[in-house]
Amino acid sequence: MVSATPLSPTPRSTVRRGAKRARTDRGDLYAVLDAGLVGHLAVVLDGAPVVLPTGYGRSDDTLYLHGSTGAGTLRAATAGAPVCFTVTHLDGVVYARSAFHHSLNYRCAVVHGTARPVTDPDEKLLGLQVLTEQLAPGSWTATRQPDRKELAATAVLALDLAEASVKIRTGPPGDDEADLAAPGDSDPVWAGVLPFRTVSGTPEPCPLLPVGVPVPGRVRNRALSPPA
Amino acid sequence: MVSATPLSPTPRSTVRRGAKRARTDRGDLYAVLDAGLVGHLAVVLDGAPVVLPTGYGRSDDTLYLHGSTGAGTLRAATAGAPVCFTVTHLDGVVYARSAFHHSLNYRCAVVHGTARPVTDPDEKLLGLQVLTEQLAPGSWTATRQPDRKELAATAVLALDLAEASVKIRTGPPGDDEADLAAPGDSDPVWAGVLPFRTVSGTPEPCPLLPVGVPVPGRVRNRALSPPA
Repeated sequence: MVSATPLSPTPRSTVRRGAKRARTDRGDLYAVLDAGLVGHLAVVLDGAPVVLPTGYGRSDDTLYLHGSTGAGTLRAATAGAPVCFTVTHLDGVVYARSAFHHSLNYRCAVVHGTARPVTDPDEKLLGLQVLTEQLAPGSWTATRQPDRKELAATAVLALDLAEASVKIRTGPPGDDEADLAAPGDSDPVWAGVLPFRTVSGTPEPCPLLPVGVPVPGRVRNRALSPPA
Repeated sequence: MVSATPLSPTPRSTVRRGAKRARTDRGDLYAVLDAGLVGHLAVVLDGAPVVLPTGYGRSDDTLYLHGSTGAGTLRAATAGAPVCFTVTHLDGVVYARSAFHHSLNYRCAVVHGTARPVTDPDEKLLGLQVLTEQLAPGSWTATRQPDRKELAATAVLALDLAEASVKIRTGPPGDDEADLAAPGDSDPVWAGVLPFRTVSGTPEPCPLLPVGVPVPGRVRNRALSPPA
């Protein structure tokens, strides 16, 4: 996942808090984005921020977003309003010896920019393909692709990955020296990480599906939330 | 979780897209918020939205957020900028017979408002307590509580849950009639839901912890991501 083009922080994509957690390799950005199903898209509507979960997909350095042409946030983004799109994975709770140093292990990518409405029919189909494959690998070719009416009802936006930052926290708590157990302490406070991961359960067939249709490999063998 | 005070949508907390998925019971709002570890806080900085993952905790109809007093988003929110705070849980991928009807099962709460900086020392401690307990139940009393220096370095904000919306999607895909398998179809497209959930792994003790300190029940028995 190592890429030749490092991330070049602009003032707003420069990580200011917890700079030691910042990553500057473009491969880290790709890895965080590619591991997600949903990001949080923020736009400004009537002077106030609105942030909603939004599906996405990536093709090289372009992030594709989509939604109903009737959605207010999508309409604002389509009209050229600046957007921020953030993908976060939680990897574990960090238990410290003090309340203050409790934390989370996480991977987070933040993309700033102005989205470009995708109007070219071929690029729109490409965008919907990478969006579908991000959500459900294998589904683009296995299911009916969008018809003219569905294409008209769907807004696809392209967001360039030029201005982005990545933060990743891993490892144990960063407790103060004074909070560490003294030698011989008979009852030290436990500290460490409770890792967690996302696992899939048993596929639930649609009630309208004929009995006995096997669960395809694209569903059955799906891996979720790969570690960093 | 049923509450006597239903959610009263304002224009911006009225669910416009997928209104059939909107919930109006305050208990649904509490349930979605209480099941999360991190939300996405959006503010407007220099005319553009910024959205970052942020810890939180709830006490009745107040959401407490916190962060470093040096963080730009927290500073803007402290200064009275409007905020939006969104908590999203993903429950499963919805596999449809068409790419268009692919979806996700999810629970999402969106809170709009203006945050109030918490300056009263007692309320600040309460806020930090509920924040700590949301992240790590049991840790507030089991670990060292914040000292004066830590309190000074931490901004705590209160966000009222007056203006909020909840959307929940459950169940199978909503395919078009024409895409359903015809009787006798020998190779129908599988459709249904691949549910997923978050599970915790084996606790990883801090390398600085003396050997043999048992993992406490607050870590060992922790339940994550309870279903709706």
